Amino acid sequence: MYVKNIWVSAQKGRIMLRVGMLTSGGDCQALNAAMRGVAKSLFSQCKNVEIYGFIDGYRGLIKGEYKLMKNDDFSGILNKGGTILGSSRMPFKYMGVPLEDGSDKVERMIKTYKKINLDCLVVLGGNGSHKTANLLMNNGLNVLTLPKTIDNDLAETEISFGFQSAVDIATNAIDCIHTTAASHSRVFIIELMGHKTGWLTLHAGIAGGADIILIPEIPYSIDSIAKAIARRTESGKRFTIIAAAEGAISDEEARLTKKELKQRRKIENYPSAAYRIGAQIEEKTGQEVRVTVPGHVQRGGAPVAYDRVLATRLGVKAAQLILNKEYGYMVGIKNNKIDKIPLSDVAGKTKMVDVDDELVQQARQLGICLGN
Amino acid sequence: MYVKNIWVSAQKGRIMLRVGMLTSGGDCQALNAAMRGVAKSLFSQCKNVEIYGFIDGYRGLIKGEYKLMKNDDFSGILNKGGTILGSSRMPFKYMGVPLEDGSDKVERMIKTYKKINLDCLVVLGGNGSHKTANLLMNNGLNVLTLPKTIDNDLAETEISFGFQSAVDIATNAIDCIHTTAASHSRVFIIELMGHKTGWLTLHAGIAGGADIILIPEIPYSIDSIAKAIARRTESGKRFTIIAAAEGAISDEEARLTKKELKQRRKIENYPSAAYRIGAQIEEKTGQEVRVTVPGHVQRGGAPVAYDRVLATRLGVKAAQLILNKEYGYMVGIKNNKIDKIPLSDVAGKTKMVDVDDELVQQARQLGICLGN
Amino acid sequence: MYVKNIWVSAQKGRIMLRVGMLTSGGDCQALNAAMRGVAKSLFSQCKNVEIYGFIDGYRGLIKGEYKLMKNDDFSGILNKGGTILGSSRMPFKYMGVPLEDGSDKVERMIKTYKKINLDCLVVLGGNGSHKTANLLMNNGLNVLTLPKTIDNDLAETEISFGFQSAVDIATNAIDCIHTTAASHSRVFIIELMGHKTGWLTLHAGIAGGADIILIPEIPYSIDSIAKAIARRTESGKRFTIIAAAEGAISDEEARLTKKELKQRRKIENYPSAAYRIGAQIEEKTGQEVRVTVPGHVQRGGAPVAYDRVLATRLGVKAAQLILNKEYGYMVGIKNNKIDKIPLSDVAGKTKMVDVDDELVQQARQLGICLGN
Amino acid sequence: MYVKNIWVSAQKGRIMLRVGMLTSGGDCQALNAAMRGVAKSLFSQCKNVEIYGFIDGYRGLIKGEYKLMKNDDFSGILNKGGTILGSSRMPFKYMGVPLEDGSDKVERMIKTYKKINLDCLVVLGGNGSHKTANLLMNNGLNVLTLPKTIDNDLAETEISFGFQSAVDIATNAIDCIHTTAASHSRVFIIELMGHKTGWLTLHAGIAGGADIILIPEIPYSIDSIAKAIARRTESGKRFTIIAAAEGAISDEEARLTKKELKQRRKIENYPSAAYRIGAQIEEKTGQEVRVTVPGHVQRGGAPVAYDRVLATRLGVKAAQLILNKEYGYMVGIKNNKIDKIPLSDVAGKTKMVDVDDELVQQARQLGICLGN
Repeated sequence: MYVKNIWVSAQKGRIMLRVGMLTSGGDCQALNAAMRGVAKSLFSQCKNVEIYGFIDGYRGLIKGEYKLMKNDDFSGILNKGGTILGSSRMPFKYMGVPLEDGSDKVERMIKTYKKINLDCLVVLGGNGSHKTANLLMNNGLNVLTLPKTIDNDLAETEISFGFQSAVDIATNAIDCIHTTAASHSRVFIIELMGHKTGWLTLHAGIAGGADIILIPEIPYSIDSIAKAIARRTESGKRFTIIAAAEGAISDEEARLTKKELKQRRKIENYPSAAYRIGAQIEEKTGQEVRVTVPGHVQRGGAPVAYDRVLATRLGVKAAQLILNKEYGYMVGIKNNKIDKIPLSDVAGKTKMVDVDDELVQQARQLGICLGN
Repeated sequence: MYVKNIWVSAQKGRIMLRVGMLTSGGDCQALNAAMRGVAKSLFSQCKNVEIYGFIDGYRGLIKGEYKLMKNDDFSGILNKGGTILGSSRMPFKYMGVPLEDGSDKVERMIKTYKKINLDCLVVLGGNGSHKTANLLMNNGLNVLTLPKTIDNDLAETEISFGFQSAVDIATNAIDCIHTTAASHSRVFIIELMGHKTGWLTLHAGIAGGADIILIPEIPYSIDSIAKAIARRTESGKRFTIIAAAEGAISDEEARLTKKELKQRRKIENYPSAAYRIGAQIEEKTGQEVRVTVPGHVQRGGAPVAYDRVLATRLGVKAAQLILNKEYGYMVGIKNNKIDKIPLSDVAGKTKMVDVDDELVQQARQLGICLGN
Repeated sequence: MYVKNIWVSAQKGRIMLRVGMLTSGGDCQALNAAMRGVAKSLFSQCKNVEIYGFIDGYRGLIKGEYKLMKNDDFSGILNKGGTILGSSRMPFKYMGVPLEDGSDKVERMIKTYKKINLDCLVVLGGNGSHKTANLLMNNGLNVLTLPKTIDNDLAETEISFGFQSAVDIATNAIDCIHTTAASHSRVFIIELMGHKTGWLTLHAGIAGGADIILIPEIPYSIDSIAKAIARRTESGKRFTIIAAAEGAISDEEARLTKKELKQRRKIENYPSAAYRIGAQIEEKTGQEVRVTVPGHVQRGGAPVAYDRVLATRLGVKAAQLILNKEYGYMVGIKNNKIDKIPLSDVAGKTKMVDVDDELVQQARQLGICLGN
Repeated sequence: MYVKNIWVSAQKGRIMLRVGMLTSGGDCQALNAAMRGVAKSLFSQCKNVEIYGFIDGYRGLIKGEYKLMKNDDFSGILNKGGTILGSSRMPFKYMGVPLEDGSDKVERMIKTYKKINLDCLVVLGGNGSHKTANLLMNNGLNVLTLPKTIDNDLAETEISFGFQSAVDIATNAIDCIHTTAASHSRVFIIELMGHKTGWLTLHAGIAGGADIILIPEIPYSIDSIAKAIARRTESGKRFTIIAAAEGAISDEEARLTKKELKQRRKIENYPSAAYRIGAQIEEKTGQEVRVTVPGHVQRGGAPVAYDRVLATRLGVKAAQLILNKEYGYMVGIKNNKIDKIPLSDVAGKTKMVDVDDELVQQARQLGICLGN
């Protein structure tokens, strides 16, 4: 027998195992693959299991909106983007503030959980969702989480699902820019997702062969960018490709107070970073700039094989933890192995790119300009 | 023998056949496939042929910058995006204006042509390039052209290469938006290439299942858009996807004079159509709008199989015309067959989407809102 | 108003319009897109319409297995491969032979049709399915058909949906072979679908840059193949790529009687054409041969944009014909325009590649060896 | 300064650094990306560096065939499949056997190395290539290696480049089978690369949602397969998808001696595993079986983003080792970090799938049949 520690009674069908599941925050690739991993392995190992899917993330848990899901509901979804359960952003933004009917949101979530008599709630989400999951755990619920984010900024796990698929889409976009860029003496800026962290931009920039990579963690100097462009022109290259994160910021802007920055952004009124950086470059260098903003395209479509295997494995591991009655963990990757990480170690933290990170060093060694 | 009318002498190697080739204007997919088609079939049918590739389009012809190309130069490029010869936009913008050395651009092109002693010049280009090609023909040069444009706006040919590849990229982007859009009640605008014509947006919009399609030829009413969004919300749909061409314009804007429009655009200061339309929708409906601008990505990457076959066949046909000493044509598609079209019938015209076009009617019959 | 000739009563909701739909034969890409085109445009133009989907093609019509479908059943399927209705091959093989309960299959189909009180039956299928559709028409049913086949061998239409998607998959496979082939002095054979016709292999072979293309319509001489390989070796090329249709046949085999051929194939016992041709080449040339058989992969996955637009348009046109009470047609493409073709002109015919076809000539002009 | 330990003299241009590079064995994706990583970072950090590329792997080193490569030779190759240097399989097969001119192959390699006065030789290869590299090291040459294999069977590194790209291609093929399989009651076998190890099949099988996965390390029982198929049929599934490695073997076959097995294989005469397994299943179950053999397609095409970043980073690290004068290592991944592994720890070993591997356990927990 390959399953060692199991919830024997449930497996033998003596008692019923009840598991809730929800997807929260911005969606991404492989959410369905992860849920399928949890569900298929529970159904395949237990005689008596009920899976409850909450509609639209925590909102469904708050409002008591869910559906009982069958094995077949998880068939054919392995390669489907999005989430079959729906999601919602920040249903918890005003947490603590009473709802219309006077009840607190956390209380209502606990109420729903207890009403269905769940044994465990599995939350698939990113940074915000983990804070909430931790709060629910602290309120006595059995919670497990799975790390979902194209930003790869969840603490304590080396990788989250969605990330590699987003990197692939962004990389293909840079590839396309490459084949068309060669015609003219121009600067191309492709704006990639990442308001606070630059993992996606850094990986896609390296994979796509970007000449300049700008990420939130390393404020750029427009002078350095201009010099890097000039160096390329001198060496006979006719174009420069810049991969810039949504949260890319100049050194000068980084010195402003939050209020000053907000004010300046309002005055300048650029729809996003690439346009602002483009204007700065045009002003500084006189070069013509073209902007590409793939936007939500990065979150959509079928997951790459890597993410499907990752998400499936994390899901299967979550099922094992449920069968072992081990709760309060995020299932993640440490030292390239599947691991369980205490939720309290994850909640409220963000994994940033460090200037001394080996990946950053290597990008520089390749001759990529990181803006400073 | 499968070749019937041929330039027997050249094929038998008695005389030398000299063919020039250049790619002009914004690049696109399958330019290399088309050149390969011309070259491979000349090399395979003629003993004595020399192919001269002009660097960076007409600029190379003006400046006398070219390279003699071998059969191997055309190997392995069938599926490569961009152009191995380079291109340039509007080298001819100031045509008639003397160059630094006092010579006229047309004269210089003729001079280069005669200096190499070309038998024919093959031009791969879009609308602007065809005007120039026609001018050269009127000046006595032997010219053949191949229709290259992702806009599909060249007159007298049903399809141009590059178009279908661009449609595919744009469609995949809409697909990705679809899988991620379902999560929230939002409007997504994806801006597709096409300043004057809406073919690309119309095709990709239909192929991607866009709910609203906005093209330059059909000015939109913001009221109609708002109503279409409301209808979707009423029918339980949580999102609306709008495919908008770069040149999409509101009915109100369409009534302005060119000067008034230019002035307003300057004041509003949106980087492109999608942002402007997004602001109009947010103001009108209060709905949150997300914008995607794939930009030059639409021009890049490997051509789809359709474009490779099309470009190859057009190229092979051009080679046959050269062997037949038939000049002054664009090789295009009429009634789904390869045809030669007098250059004078093509030059200076633009193929627009007609409001009564069957494709437009069918989009409406499907329930797609076309903005009016 | 964009709809001119319509079934006014149904549209105004006075009477009910009932339409049956089924997908028959081997499945392919864009079947769902085509059904969506029919359904969405009926739902959007008519107040009172009921669409009945028959399960597993004609089998569902025979057995009376169907489901009433809603507008939402056709949402989100535009880019899904396969068919949401299921299909079956040759349910009609033993037509005329009484079923267990003594009733004839055609009679049972008519019975089901009349029981539901259908106004029209829409059949999506290939060659075999068109014969059956024609038979049903001759038995008094209102029938419309849509041309579905990756083989592109349906008569009277220039193109069928599924074809271009299959060509794209096959082309990408050849691309992959290309990048890996360069390493060694080897012959690569990729076997593509097509037992009787070579359209898919011809198009993919040209699009993928195959050196040799073998199709059923042009029996090959192993000598010619060996010479073509030798020519490549002489010119310094290290590999040869052969695109061979499933039905590729040698000139010698083509001279055998059907019985003799069957016997020989049985003795040789190759699983498919590529292995047989590979063995012939190895024997003749001593070259190492590698075989790739993508098989059903060619029928699967998401349709390319081209097929989505094509299938959608054909579906929308079928809906218009229904509203116009025009029956007995296949909706196809003639002279690059959507057209209705009398079913009797299509049924029982196969569109073969002609040796004098311009595409064949052009392949030869490119220097491709067609095996003879 | 981001580079800490460097070969200061070379960087300052006082002395010349000479690096040789070769790609050996079956090619795969990201070979070019890896070479570009080595070269770009050497060129960007050193004033005086010469890179010598050996033609066709070790064969070039033996024969003294190489070219001096410039920085530009490594531009635009990041996403190109294959290898710009060419490769060869087993040039070393008859090692020790005198060449025609009487000199030993190893001696000749050493001679070439010394003639160019190389400081280091960088070898990109798989298992066989590492044995040779180790031998060269033992003969006094400075050698570094990069782990290249779609099989992922190199010891002491968690991952090799090429693997993830091959998994992606194989997974997409299974996806396509999925969309088309649903039509009929059939068994589909897709044969994936891997003669000795099942990593590729295991990953692609999980990522593609295969129902049965057969790998060399786990001999299958045809009874177990038949039961798994029957279980699917019982639960209403109409098809079964089997991912089988080239080296999949039945338990009964596994008990044969090498000689007996070879003899039986010769008598049965199946071109590859999938056909043999297919025949066994048809015999056992009477089910119709369809076979897909993607073959070399799995080695070709553009690398996925994951492999590009991986290969680039390993290449950059190799450059750092060269600058640090650290030789005799394979650059690999341990605990998800880039690491240097003594060549002697790698050479001659194969990383097999262990029956107790967590990935295998998880596949079982998902309900996948592993054949036993």
